[in-house]
Amino acid sequence: MPVTLTDIRAAHRRIAGGVIVSPCPHSIPLSEITGADVACKLDNFQRTGSFKERGARNALLRLPAAARRRGVIAASAGNHALGLAYHGQLLGVPVTVVMPDYAPLIKITTCQRLGANVLVRGRDFAEARAEADRLVAAEGLTYIHGFDAPDIIAGQGTMGLEILEQVPDVEAIVCPVGGGGLIAGLSLAVKSLRPGVKVIGVESVATGNLAAALRARHPVIVPRRATLADGLATLTVGANAFALARRHVDQVVSVGENWISLAILRMLELEKTVVEGAAAAPLAALMAGRLPKLRGRKVVLVVGGGNIDPAILSRVIEKGLVNDGRLTRFTARISDRPGGLAMLCRVIAEAGASIKDIAHDRAFSGPDVYEVHADCTVETRDRAHIAALYRALKRNGFPLVVAK
Amino acid sequence: MPVTLTDIRAAHRRIAGGVIVSPCPHSIPLSEITGADVACKLDNFQRTGSFKERGARNALLRLPAAARRRGVIAASAGNHALGLAYHGQLLGVPVTVVMPDYAPLIKITTCQRLGANVLVRGRDFAEARAEADRLVAAEGLTYIHGFDAPDIIAGQGTMGLEILEQVPDVEAIVCPVGGGGLIAGLSLAVKSLRPGVKVIGVESVATGNLAAALRARHPVIVPRRATLADGLATLTVGANAFALARRHVDQVVSVGENWISLAILRMLELEKTVVEGAAAAPLAALMAGRLPKLRGRKVVLVVGGGNIDPAILSRVIEKGLVNDGRLTRFTARISDRPGGLAMLCRVIAEAGASIKDIAHDRAFSGPDVYEVHADCTVETRDRAHIAALYRALKRNGFPLVVAK
Repeated sequence: MPVTLTDIRAAHRRIAGGVIVSPCPHSIPLSEITGADVACKLDNFQRTGSFKERGARNALLRLPAAARRRGVIAASAGNHALGLAYHGQLLGVPVTVVMPDYAPLIKITTCQRLGANVLVRGRDFAEARAEADRLVAAEGLTYIHGFDAPDIIAGQGTMGLEILEQVPDVEAIVCPVGGGGLIAGLSLAVKSLRPGVKVIGVESVATGNLAAALRARHPVIVPRRATLADGLATLTVGANAFALARRHVDQVVSVGENWISLAILRMLELEKTVVEGAAAAPLAALMAGRLPKLRGRKVVLVVGGGNIDPAILSRVIEKGLVNDGRLTRFTARISDRPGGLAMLCRVIAEAGASIKDIAHDRAFSGPDVYEVHADCTVETRDRAHIAALYRALKRNGFPLVVAK
Repeated sequence: MPVTLTDIRAAHRRIAGGVIVSPCPHSIPLSEITGADVACKLDNFQRTGSFKERGARNALLRLPAAARRRGVIAASAGNHALGLAYHGQLLGVPVTVVMPDYAPLIKITTCQRLGANVLVRGRDFAEARAEADRLVAAEGLTYIHGFDAPDIIAGQGTMGLEILEQVPDVEAIVCPVGGGGLIAGLSLAVKSLRPGVKVIGVESVATGNLAAALRARHPVIVPRRATLADGLATLTVGANAFALARRHVDQVVSVGENWISLAILRMLELEKTVVEGAAAAPLAALMAGRLPKLRGRKVVLVVGGGNIDPAILSRVIEKGLVNDGRLTRFTARISDRPGGLAMLCRVIAEAGASIKDIAHDRAFSGPDVYEVHADCTVETRDRAHIAALYRALKRNGFPLVVAK
């Protein structure tokens, strides 16, 4: 039975009280940098940090009593596992999660703390899934698919109902796409109630499942590439999800990894909110100029999750600052006579830049023993400022050996 | 004229519509890790990222027409400058900000983008302040003190009114203290309306202005030390602020810098919100066990600002992970014969830890040419896990040279 608006409405009533109606505040600074009139649907505020709780709770509540007692299982290294574990605990349904070997320690321990039985099995998702299927057969557990089960799609669709209520004059909703469960439910809800509202999917250039499926007219397996937006890196879109998305989604765009990285930084700096890569993709698409028709329009960005590994976040910040022209690294050739380094520092300071780190490199500086290399990491305002700094260095006799 | 509840109520009406009523959501995960029943007043969601807008807007709106036309000035390297610049622009009041040399580039450019006339003058705050005083005399500008002007204190007090409305059953409010303006206004509002609600101030061990003033019975200058909570690092509490705080604040505690660092990470991971050091101090005090009487109580943490330099945030995250036992670095001695490194990696993997970075160090490994040092950075679950890892390494013939 295909999912209908009635299912989504029923799901919304069913999960009320267990899943928060996340805020959807207007953002002045994000509107300024994108030229659209932006609000953010902050589902990263859910208890386990993502929208996946909507579907998970709905699916658990829809189980027949006997299946509830036996328990559920899913293969997942991410947010679906967290959502299931948490609501399974709340509802008294035993939850088993099979995670592949590469699952981050923190997700494993968090799922355990939420009461799930966590099995770490398999070198990739397919192997973890095979182990889960074995347990379904052996122990009578119910498998809950993370993005293609109809009850999951209906649960995710509840976000669409909330957005229409919270931002009645919305003109477009921009939503990340991985397996397609969220955009399927959301677009169904939105188009059924307000056909004039555009629903736009965003993928990473490293994923692209929905775009590939639309080209082929059916879900296809997309080669897995490394992406910051690991929440989008499913092998394919789901068949049920695709059937809905192809009818209701107006447009799908893809956005580069560098833009996703920069968007994570902008959400952090301007919106003071922590997002994972997938959740930054909609802002990234606006920032990258992929959606020029949204200029001046009332746009809701779906911020689906905030579960980014802090160690990765820390690298993203530094990469974002570099992308942004606010941090630059270069190697300058200086004289090893007294005063050379002092002079270099003065030129940098006079250019209005601020030295964060500087290292003298004698041993690997080439044949001239009177010359050394200085590796500098410098805080700047933007790319134009970096260019001006480099010109000033050259003019003052500090040729750059490497500019990064 | 000392500030009264009536002033705060008037300020609340005056700034309504210009300053957002920030959300104050309950937090399940922060309640779990602290043992209190925690909600967070998220003033980091203000447009310029801090509570300072409350006082700034109130003070600007209270100016006589002639003073409004001539404009205002303040010395500030931080949130007060941003709040004044933004509301000055909204209200058409010219704003001059004097920032000391060490002000971060990003604050300078942000203030400029908000329309302020930014002067970068002086090696420290006192010199910047002296320049501002000169301009007050020369150009007839009105100086607006960041934490001791009565209109500022009344403006900050509006947060107290909102908390009582948003969390009617609150039992304690934990508030960071720097210059004292916020806690002065907040405690006045809260104690006037609900004397049973405890108001608790938190300082860093590196600041301690209010504690020192309470000991001395008057504001004293506290030697400035480096702190992550730069928003608390004023030279002293204000005289007006102190007069209110000494009457209305129940308790002042101080918290170590490591706890502040860890609290920033917890807010990021568990609450998905970005906070600056000062705003993390209340959570840090709970986490550090400084407020044992709040166990099981309904507590609001004042999250005053989110303006943390992303580069610092990135370092805080890594330091937090280390503090936390989720990242460890050590040097192990291994045999340089084939298989030594492979064996080391196997022992680490079997202990359930994950290698992030490993470097072989031959040249500086000591006299035995058959031995080398391996510098390892490893992801772990917690401190107990690190201890178990170190024991396993020793047992398998990899003595640690340095454990960090």
